[in-house]
Amino acid sequence: MRFDHVGVATRDAAGLADSFSGLLDAPVAHEETFEGMRVVFLELDGGYFELLEPAEEGPIRDYLEREGPGIHHVALATDDLPAALDRARDRGVDLVDEEPRPGAWGHAVAFLHPRSTGGVLVEFVEV
Amino acid sequence: MRFDHVGVATRDAAGLADSFSGLLDAPVAHEETFEGMRVVFLELDGGYFELLEPAEEGPIRDYLEREGPGIHHVALATDDLPAALDRARDRGVDLVDEEPRPGAWGHAVAFLHPRSTGGVLVEFVEV
Repeated sequence: MRFDHVGVATRDAAGLADSFSGLLDAPVAHEETFEGMRVVFLELDGGYFELLEPAEEGPIRDYLEREGPGIHHVALATDDLPAALDRARDRGVDLVDEEPRPGAWGHAVAFLHPRSTGGVLVEFVEV
Repeated sequence: MRFDHVGVATRDAAGLADSFSGLLDAPVAHEETFEGMRVVFLELDGGYFELLEPAEEGPIRDYLEREGPGIHHVALATDDLPAALDRARDRGVDLVDEEPRPGAWGHAVAFLHPRSTGGVLVEFVEV
């Protein structure tokens, strides 16, 4: 598996994109509205920041209310998501998504439950 | 800048290393005791997880008590850390470390203050 992105919950994706793109030399690679969120991908060498700004009710808004802005998850890329999920299942890892589902940027994704991964919310993404 | 690692605060670095190395095919690349912490680096394609287990009082133990285990920071690599800090300073970013200091694995590091980076604790590491 390889690093794909670090997901960041924010109340101001445009402002944070401006700030990070200058500070980190990380230009905007993709943006879209997805499942009630403004989603902005910033490209670095070797991966992306995915900025997630909720526009309506949903898990990222809940997260911001509970935890405040900051790192939300880490995404690891695989070219065979069903096999990666089978491996997780075989190891007794609790899955948020039992099967791949459509994620941002047109990729299939699945989340593992952080209670199985040391409190780290891990996303698998097939790219 | 390029992704270097995601730092994870844990109360059981050895157990989480076992779990992640099997689940993510991420073998241990380096381990050491550093500033009162057990530090384990797990290698993935394109970066590392850095597992941080406090053995004594310090910021990671404080973090665990306050936030619980999970993602603590994201580290971005540069080959010119003083220049990266100058750029951050020029942009009005608050720095935790005004100058490079010795970090784990023999690298010079400096942290930015999360109040300047959308709640994300960013580490710059010179590799």
